Amino acid sequence: MIATIIGVGLIGGSLALSLKEKGIANWIIGVDFNEANLKRAQELKIIDEASDIEDAMNRSQLIILAIPVDAMLKALPSILDKINKTHVIMDVGSTKQQILQLVSGHPHRGRFVAAHPMAGTEYSGPDAAIPNLFAQKTMVLCDVKNSDEDAVELIETVVDQLNMRIVYMNAEEHDLHTAYVSHISHITSFALALTVLKKEKEQGRIFELASGGFESTVRLAKSSPDMWVPIFKHNRHNVLDVLEEHIKQLEQMKQLLQDEDYDTFYKLIQKSNKIRKILK
Amino acid sequence: MIATIIGVGLIGGSLALSLKEKGIANWIIGVDFNEANLKRAQELKIIDEASDIEDAMNRSQLIILAIPVDAMLKALPSILDKINKTHVIMDVGSTKQQILQLVSGHPHRGRFVAAHPMAGTEYSGPDAAIPNLFAQKTMVLCDVKNSDEDAVELIETVVDQLNMRIVYMNAEEHDLHTAYVSHISHITSFALALTVLKKEKEQGRIFELASGGFESTVRLAKSSPDMWVPIFKHNRHNVLDVLEEHIKQLEQMKQLLQDEDYDTFYKLIQKSNKIRKILK
Repeated sequence: MIATIIGVGLIGGSLALSLKEKGIANWIIGVDFNEANLKRAQELKIIDEASDIEDAMNRSQLIILAIPVDAMLKALPSILDKINKTHVIMDVGSTKQQILQLVSGHPHRGRFVAAHPMAGTEYSGPDAAIPNLFAQKTMVLCDVKNSDEDAVELIETVVDQLNMRIVYMNAEEHDLHTAYVSHISHITSFALALTVLKKEKEQGRIFELASGGFESTVRLAKSSPDMWVPIFKHNRHNVLDVLEEHIKQLEQMKQLLQDEDYDTFYKLIQKSNKIRKILK
Repeated sequence: MIATIIGVGLIGGSLALSLKEKGIANWIIGVDFNEANLKRAQELKIIDEASDIEDAMNRSQLIILAIPVDAMLKALPSILDKINKTHVIMDVGSTKQQILQLVSGHPHRGRFVAAHPMAGTEYSGPDAAIPNLFAQKTMVLCDVKNSDEDAVELIETVVDQLNMRIVYMNAEEHDLHTAYVSHISHITSFALALTVLKKEKEQGRIFELASGGFESTVRLAKSSPDMWVPIFKHNRHNVLDVLEEHIKQLEQMKQLLQDEDYDTFYKLIQKSNKIRKILK
């Protein structure tokens, strides 16, 4: 199978590597508006050739959109305009409601399968692409009832071959859940980095003591605003809800510290320890 | 050298393993009020024998206090009462001002070296003890000017042999810096766990989508309240300051999202990306 990857960054590039390695595709065409990234992806042998979108679509069966979610809103309708019944389009975006609303009435909507691999790193661009990013991870497929059966089957086969676990959800559930287990983690990391960087201006030695715990909570703050601002924009309502709840929890802790109510603080931490049942 | 470890949990137990492995101590006596932990540490061969504090002190040159910082406030003065010039006492506590104020006038203050290894995990107890926890990490030594020269020299030699980097600070600086690069990370993790666990009650499937980013920001929420409540209590003033600043940053992000001011949001994330220069 010939596959086209539109957007050869961390996710698109890593997918390209896996599609080739697992023998799912024998030829990968890369498309990217960023000429430097496209060239770099070729140098790194992430893609077999670079081309434009028309040529790539003429020759591929599977087209994967791996671009920021705002760019997706512009790209997907025009791609759906041009395809035929042999094409299957998949995205890998972190939000789903807006994009699925946008194309809901499109005559070729059935050829599109909305997907979101729950995998990534805090780095971006083709140099960040790595093999095996997706193995043992979860792929969410959204609103598959609105996709053609053969299109869903192809994507399910690909996801299986990537050694991923499939979870089916509707777009609404997806956007709510990712706000809680992904988007808020990024917000807190960005805010923590800002908090500490601000203090560093007065206290230059502050990072001498940074260790694994700090690094763990703040590493997501290296993530690209090009990817994340559109996600927060698309999922604004859910992100605001969880952010409000998170600030409430922090305010409660602050109040307990101010009141020196350490017994209640102790009980709160015990309650938060229940996260042990979730994490490995 | 015979060394006594008081508190055979994650830090004390890991230190015991390293002291033996590096040949710094050839015999380790373990002391712990928790009989089960003491027995377990013996089973795991973390310590060579279990004993009581008087017997252990009579036979050891180096005594390491690895107990929660509130227990330290009770234990250290009575230990200093009993020691002589051949003893060196070191602690590994996460806060320093209170403990050093408490013993500042003690006639044996000079035998005590206040230390804080910037290393740990979210687990606790002797089963959490691991070899090489300290290699390549930072050991903070506080207010060494108030310790006897030979006591500091012994500890410096031990820390060198553990392959650790030494940073010297006064207690005030130490407590300020750890609030920013360690204590706040734990607060945000506890609060994030509470936020998400609360939502899980309505949305049982929420954790199906949890991936590496979420795990990274929330793993510290597995940490023990027995260790952490006393730290927040001792460092209340600094922790409240940084918590207030962190809530301010989150409120600002919330406001920008509410106002749909994505340009300013973008610039904030770019600013937080500067954490890249700090983290590897």
